[in-house]
Amino acid sequence: MTLAPVGVQGLLSEPHHDGSDLHVIERPDELGGEAVVRLRLPRGTSADRVLLRYERDGEPRGVEATVDEETETDVWWRAEFPLANPVTRYRWLLSGGTAGYAWVNAVGRTAHEVADSDDFVITAGRWGPEWHLDSVVYEVFPDRFASSGLEVAPPEWAVPRGWGELPTGRGRPTPYELYGGDLRGIEQRLDHVESLNANVIYLTPFFPATSTHRYDATTFDHVDPLLGGDDALRSLADAAHARGIRLLGDITLNHTGYRHEWFERARADATAPERDFYYFDDSIPGGYESWLGHRTLPKLNWLSDELRVRFSQVLQRYLELGLDGWRIDVANMVGRYRDLDLNRDVSKWTRQQVGEALVIAEHGHDFRPDLALRGWHGVMNYSGFLRPLWTWLLRDDPDPEQQRQFWGIAVGVPRLDGAAAVAALRRFRAGVPWESVLHSWNLLDSHDTARFRTIAGTAERHLVGIGLQMTLPGVPMIFAGDELGLEGAWGEDARRTMPWGGQWDEAFVGEVRALTRLRRSLPALARGGLRFVHVAPDAIAFLRETKDERLLVLAQRTPEEISLPFDQLELLYDHDLFRIWRIR
Amino acid sequence: MTLAPVGVQGLLSEPHHDGSDLHVIERPDELGGEAVVRLRLPRGTSADRVLLRYERDGEPRGVEATVDEETETDVWWRAEFPLANPVTRYRWLLSGGTAGYAWVNAVGRTAHEVADSDDFVITAGRWGPEWHLDSVVYEVFPDRFASSGLEVAPPEWAVPRGWGELPTGRGRPTPYELYGGDLRGIEQRLDHVESLNANVIYLTPFFPATSTHRYDATTFDHVDPLLGGDDALRSLADAAHARGIRLLGDITLNHTGYRHEWFERARADATAPERDFYYFDDSIPGGYESWLGHRTLPKLNWLSDELRVRFSQVLQRYLELGLDGWRIDVANMVGRYRDLDLNRDVSKWTRQQVGEALVIAEHGHDFRPDLALRGWHGVMNYSGFLRPLWTWLLRDDPDPEQQRQFWGIAVGVPRLDGAAAVAALRRFRAGVPWESVLHSWNLLDSHDTARFRTIAGTAERHLVGIGLQMTLPGVPMIFAGDELGLEGAWGEDARRTMPWGGQWDEAFVGEVRALTRLRRSLPALARGGLRFVHVAPDAIAFLRETKDERLLVLAQRTPEEISLPFDQLELLYDHDLFRIWRIR
Repeated sequence: MTLAPVGVQGLLSEPHHDGSDLHVIERPDELGGEAVVRLRLPRGTSADRVLLRYERDGEPRGVEATVDEETETDVWWRAEFPLANPVTRYRWLLSGGTAGYAWVNAVGRTAHEVADSDDFVITAGRWGPEWHLDSVVYEVFPDRFASSGLEVAPPEWAVPRGWGELPTGRGRPTPYELYGGDLRGIEQRLDHVESLNANVIYLTPFFPATSTHRYDATTFDHVDPLLGGDDALRSLADAAHARGIRLLGDITLNHTGYRHEWFERARADATAPERDFYYFDDSIPGGYESWLGHRTLPKLNWLSDELRVRFSQVLQRYLELGLDGWRIDVANMVGRYRDLDLNRDVSKWTRQQVGEALVIAEHGHDFRPDLALRGWHGVMNYSGFLRPLWTWLLRDDPDPEQQRQFWGIAVGVPRLDGAAAVAALRRFRAGVPWESVLHSWNLLDSHDTARFRTIAGTAERHLVGIGLQMTLPGVPMIFAGDELGLEGAWGEDARRTMPWGGQWDEAFVGEVRALTRLRRSLPALARGGLRFVHVAPDAIAFLRETKDERLLVLAQRTPEEISLPFDQLELLYDHDLFRIWRIR
Repeated sequence: MTLAPVGVQGLLSEPHHDGSDLHVIERPDELGGEAVVRLRLPRGTSADRVLLRYERDGEPRGVEATVDEETETDVWWRAEFPLANPVTRYRWLLSGGTAGYAWVNAVGRTAHEVADSDDFVITAGRWGPEWHLDSVVYEVFPDRFASSGLEVAPPEWAVPRGWGELPTGRGRPTPYELYGGDLRGIEQRLDHVESLNANVIYLTPFFPATSTHRYDATTFDHVDPLLGGDDALRSLADAAHARGIRLLGDITLNHTGYRHEWFERARADATAPERDFYYFDDSIPGGYESWLGHRTLPKLNWLSDELRVRFSQVLQRYLELGLDGWRIDVANMVGRYRDLDLNRDVSKWTRQQVGEALVIAEHGHDFRPDLALRGWHGVMNYSGFLRPLWTWLLRDDPDPEQQRQFWGIAVGVPRLDGAAAVAALRRFRAGVPWESVLHSWNLLDSHDTARFRTIAGTAERHLVGIGLQMTLPGVPMIFAGDELGLEGAWGEDARRTMPWGGQWDEAFVGEVRALTRLRRSLPALARGGLRFVHVAPDAIAFLRETKDERLLVLAQRTPEEISLPFDQLELLYDHDLFRIWRIR
């Protein structure tokens, strides 16, 4: 039977809670402390009583809420409860009044028994580095971003290409095409990064490898000399930090390349300490487990203590060299093999290893169970951001490639309406700590997908996507080149070089800069609560609210007149299909 | 925003899948084997393509389904996929046709991105003992069921009561009131159990304790002499087995009584081997952690290896003495304390310990994450059966007690309509293996709740509840005395003695026997798939289907004329508000 997506009517009269400062008044630093939380009950809905249900060591408990504040529009209910566990679930129950009997959890109001999996989640103390929440992330694929003219002989496997040429998106040379971007090249272009108001650079892998994507590292001991080696990384980190820009690396904990020195030793010598790093098994074709059967990518076994020692050294070595955190490749598969599931354990271990630094997980599907821990700080939010936005903002005449597959499933990208998009946005924010939502990346694309411009079709719709990256909860991540409207119909096709010195669409870059500037300067966009106020097939409007600020955002996919129930609005951004106002 | 409950219209045109034999054609015995599954697509819905999405080591994969069979009413699509993990999630995607773009998971059809938490779940090989699925379980609280006249001096704490007296439901004597039921008394009444077509007796604890509920055991070394000791248990087991009736015990892995010999040794001697069985901590009032702060019930620490050795011996000793399985008390809290969560581990360990026997977990809220493992075979289904049925069948004039609390939350039991009940029934069947649904207990009440007769108010509505126990997926569990319409407004009030020799409502008992007989004789009720065909405020109708049999069930809470789109019906049961037909 069909579950109705979020309704269009009366959104502002719905009870609301989220993890922002209007609703979570006290978050204890330690277990045993009292959490103080509030529910906003607009006057359109009344309840005789409000209760809060929370869990303690797996047992549900209830406490009575009391009226904390009454305003012209809302009654605020307040409840306190002890935080018994590092990750504690809770939800509200309305009883009597117009509400009748209704649970309020992170997907909304439901008038019957609900599961705990969509509860609100609170955790003790700090979740991740605060600087991350104030960031705009800029993804750089080192081979394709900028070259300093470094003179290094290309390796045997490389297929050298000219900077202006398009990549061969599908074919034998695809993974080997070497354009010669390097780390000094990035350093030389920091002015551009800064001009975009980006203050975090996420670098895809910089280790020596046998491909230009470098996800098949041959060693973690040093930076690829093709990219300038360790010195170039240190120099880039120093130069970036001098401008207040942070730097993230990219590492795969799930597998290595088969040419990796660990694997070569393990294969050559069954008594080598690295032997236990992998799953050698004669019943598997090839004799060892590998990533989805690709023998060039042998899978790592996290039961090995020595593997943890080695990775601890690797993770820390590059933090000392200047990184501020790591993006973890294929994080959803790490530690999972047959009847073994060490994923939770490895995610928590990784957070411990990096100390104050950031850990973001690549996670292409439902990340919620993996994120409701104290492991990864956040994810690249494909399921709860990219997919809904693609379905809503898809061009009317999609590229044939978009008829072929939608992220791993061989059907075309569907074109769905605003309610479906909002339902999916909400779905993946439920059941995880609010902080993990804020620390996750709002991305429209990456080096693994089509470019969003190719999906959306026009600069105007592209700007709606970028606008939503900046204004929905989460940290925006822009794949370098998107600010110029680069195209690409799938991952490898989209790994195009930056057209330095070419004819840029300056008007478009200017709009991107305006949006990133707002994201950096408006705290409510980084930490504010989220309430949808209008959801229609072609328009979505919402509020981002803190104690000190209220912003109204309107995103449309076609131009039409929308009437929103607010006055005293100060227009902060206005371009065709996307607008931001401050409510005074 | 409000999520609409299950729709009323067009249920028979909805795509359907569940774990029954019409839909799961092959379930591999071992990892790596191929699962073969089918989706039933009624002709009211069409799709150009059907795909199946499954997970492998945490990564989603897609396979194309093909048309397997076409009938006048349905198109059956078939897909195959390898079972890489012991617990593998999957769901269907419809593309094109009238379906457009829609996921089909265990809560139904959704036209936007969905979470994995509601997926179908398949597991390799056998889940639990087959005999359990063919059972009607009868719960016996030993002190209150029947006395053989055993002459044992009551312990100091006991407050002896006459058999016909009502228990003091609230007060100092409540836990100590001793009516003198014993195990030989149960043995003498096996004729009655058999006459009810019950073939499993679940005994609440039989260990020596300092209360008549015995959840505060003082030792696990022998059966309470007040109940007749080990010999009486062996004799009961033998006599029951001779009639084809199995026997289950009840044990608490979360805590012991503070008079338990382990705890007394632990407290007396900080070097005792039992010291590590508990959480001694001077920062806790009383000096140790206990069940929800009740110091008489010190909490067990499952980090202790020696504790596991001891419990392994206990679990096995009584299986050897004649038990066929265990009900695990407070299973939701076991192994959970502050930042430690060993629950999954302990549940899997427990299943290993009991070998071929049964393990059923008490679980008062969302059991789904705990059940989607290979630990507990099933749960006492409070969230996904008792609560929805109470809300739907609540009497029009509830007892004041029912205005006070609804299972741990201090609000009255709400009266909700059929759609709300069905939505909750579906909600808690999603995201867990179908076998775990079949192995869970459909209960209307227990020694911990009000009696269902007091909730429902009339014999007619009570029979609707018992009818649904027998016909919805799951194993029916009847609390002894329910077959006589015993009343009770909350747990302790409901622990009433069996009125042997009294005036019974024979007509009611006869209806119960007719329903249990059908449950035992119709395989589709034990293992058939479930499709709802009519959901209205006051009526719910559904099909239970296997390859060989189709049954139609209609449950109503008020008498009204219902038209269902079936003919060639053979009436198997008919009493006022509840009917069962076979579809020829």
